[in-house]
Amino acid sequence: MGALTRGELAALDRQDPLGWVRERFVLPDGVVYLDGNSLGPISARMTERVAEVVRGEWGCDLIRSWNRHGWFRLPERVGARIAPLLGVDPDEVVAADSVSLNLFKLLAGLLRRRRDRHVVLAERSNFPTDLYIAEGLVEWLGAAGADGPELRLVDPDDFVGALAEAPAVATLTQVDFRTGRMRDFANVNAAARDAEVPVVWDLSHSAGAFRLDLREGGVEFAVGCGYKYLNGGPGAPGFLYVARERQDGIEPALAGWMGHRAPFRFEVGYRPAAGMRRFVTGTPPVLAMAALEEGLRSFEGVDLAALRPKGEGLGDAFIRLVDERLSGFGVEVVSPRNASERGSQVSVRCPGDGYGVMQALIAGGVIGDFREPDLLRFGFAPLYTRYADLWDAVEALRQILASGEHRRPAANPRAEVT
Amino acid sequence: MGALTRGELAALDRQDPLGWVRERFVLPDGVVYLDGNSLGPISARMTERVAEVVRGEWGCDLIRSWNRHGWFRLPERVGARIAPLLGVDPDEVVAADSVSLNLFKLLAGLLRRRRDRHVVLAERSNFPTDLYIAEGLVEWLGAAGADGPELRLVDPDDFVGALAEAPAVATLTQVDFRTGRMRDFANVNAAARDAEVPVVWDLSHSAGAFRLDLREGGVEFAVGCGYKYLNGGPGAPGFLYVARERQDGIEPALAGWMGHRAPFRFEVGYRPAAGMRRFVTGTPPVLAMAALEEGLRSFEGVDLAALRPKGEGLGDAFIRLVDERLSGFGVEVVSPRNASERGSQVSVRCPGDGYGVMQALIAGGVIGDFREPDLLRFGFAPLYTRYADLWDAVEALRQILASGEHRRPAANPRAEVT
Repeated sequence: MGALTRGELAALDRQDPLGWVRERFVLPDGVVYLDGNSLGPISARMTERVAEVVRGEWGCDLIRSWNRHGWFRLPERVGARIAPLLGVDPDEVVAADSVSLNLFKLLAGLLRRRRDRHVVLAERSNFPTDLYIAEGLVEWLGAAGADGPELRLVDPDDFVGALAEAPAVATLTQVDFRTGRMRDFANVNAAARDAEVPVVWDLSHSAGAFRLDLREGGVEFAVGCGYKYLNGGPGAPGFLYVARERQDGIEPALAGWMGHRAPFRFEVGYRPAAGMRRFVTGTPPVLAMAALEEGLRSFEGVDLAALRPKGEGLGDAFIRLVDERLSGFGVEVVSPRNASERGSQVSVRCPGDGYGVMQALIAGGVIGDFREPDLLRFGFAPLYTRYADLWDAVEALRQILASGEHRRPAANPRAEVT
Repeated sequence: MGALTRGELAALDRQDPLGWVRERFVLPDGVVYLDGNSLGPISARMTERVAEVVRGEWGCDLIRSWNRHGWFRLPERVGARIAPLLGVDPDEVVAADSVSLNLFKLLAGLLRRRRDRHVVLAERSNFPTDLYIAEGLVEWLGAAGADGPELRLVDPDDFVGALAEAPAVATLTQVDFRTGRMRDFANVNAAARDAEVPVVWDLSHSAGAFRLDLREGGVEFAVGCGYKYLNGGPGAPGFLYVARERQDGIEPALAGWMGHRAPFRFEVGYRPAAGMRRFVTGTPPVLAMAALEEGLRSFEGVDLAALRPKGEGLGDAFIRLVDERLSGFGVEVVSPRNASERGSQVSVRCPGDGYGVMQALIAGGVIGDFREPDLLRFGFAPLYTRYADLWDAVEALRQILASGEHRRPAANPRAEVT
């Protein structure tokens, strides 16, 4: 087999059963966008739809829109559009708040149910906000005088073993944000069932990248992100999934009025709404919800079964290009080479000056992501990424590495908030 | 003094030093909008500004906008625009999440600091989400095994006395959402200082209606709403204020990555950012933040000292019209008649069929609000409400009451979420 050519990649694009979907998006000219796992692009109708909500719904109908335009039900309406991507029923998902806050809701609610257990188990490689939320929860409970809550962080390979020690609740990420390594639901959930441990999955890097089957996989609790593969816009609401039979067993710790059974009765006491609605806290952010809903329309009529093969194909091709065209530059694929163990992204270790290399790539129109300390991360969104894009990205990377045109800044300017 | 006439009210509009500001808003033809205390209207540039963020910032610059367009700093940028309305410094306010969640952050953080005290004190007439949040917090802590946390609800007149019993933390609302009764900062805060009780004020029905002076009033902690008098759009982010000297003393219970000191270092352990940034949890909702920022631009160049006299004048005139024109219909003003004890709203008790009356009013183009069980609520936004609007509203109400054209539906359809 000879080295992969741009022509062969372009031919794959012509045969791509999802090729037609790319037209639903607006991508800037001259840009190869491989960062949809950080922020999905706008759909072609996004600007118009948001303007319609601002001018037509908010501007003209004002407060009446809560009923007239169904604003009140946006959390459920948007959740119902996410459900098929997860392989669950429409009434098992709501859109609300952020991944961080949604994880807090589930961890806090589940922790409360097991007073005889005190450990919150988390995978150390989770996206850090998940760790911070768990740490904040446990620290704060301890400071308030609760019996010895404890956060236990373990390496990915030790997670299943740690479940056997019967923590109160556990959380992990399906697809690792750094390496793209994908966890198998079945192993984890079987061990969790044996030890009666509720497990909260973070689907931020998998929902929308390929079709999930949470029910088949035995997943009962999950959270995920609206602004990556769901294309909902920067800081879009996140989502929560709870299997139907578990929903009413969770008493919300974040008990906001929009999760009350009768919010407009203005009762003094809190009564949680039935089902997923209880996880809605404050007033739904209508503009952000409407944008997420519009982003999700990009999946309408798409054969969801075709997402996974394309994502695997893109990843395999990208890895082959890195192997064939970047050998000798000291870079190294750190994502699993076996597509079945990999999400829809590939990370490349670039020793020494990875931040500078990514900045140079971005300046040249190839947008990926840098992740400390030395990872170049490239995401593949089956709805709009083309095979030929991969050639262009790797070629740009090759030229940067060959010419040394990048410069390493003193530090990543986004790293410190002061 | 003869009865107030429409001509006299129109003359007040001509003399109104804030009259020019109304042109900054788009209000539908034929509508008298007296519900800006539920949802402020769009500003004239709102549609364009949001479209620019969608198409230009998100659409064209994609992930690069976090730096290029300052998305990362939106919580502080928007907070700095709110600060002058509160009489505090720009670095004492951030915009984030919702009123409900922001109240949770402050109550949880402050409760943690006083392990020798266990009571959360709240005014029973608070907006219910504040009660639910406090209840959820206390319930959940108790279920997790913390020492006897307890929620104590008292009537407004008993609040100052209850402070002397040294609760761990207390919360109340400056302007009552039902009656418009306005609390005096000084009384409450003096009693709170004596008993060393941190007090969290909910400013949802006052911020933006008139200029507050939190520093002068001794307020150290507050939350408030972005979608009422701040005109930020449906479900806009809320805000938090913490006096500078108190900020670093609060450890976030909701410890999200965007409140971390160095979010892009992806560290395992949580270190709160300095100052208000620690109260930002997940990724800021950019579209919603941008809309709130645009809504706040309506205050640019406005003499904030003129807000209060106009709000008082509107309220006084409305009460006089109700007295003069609606006597004999059994309706009754329940808001304080003394303007200095009243926020920028007037509520009218309408026995028997208040919901139907409000529906008939709205159908006729006069938009107020109904609050269970029998209140018609009318809000006055000094930036755009006209004196003559009050005449038209009361005249429409008079005709409805006189003709009995309204019908009472079986129930308020928004009341129950099932």
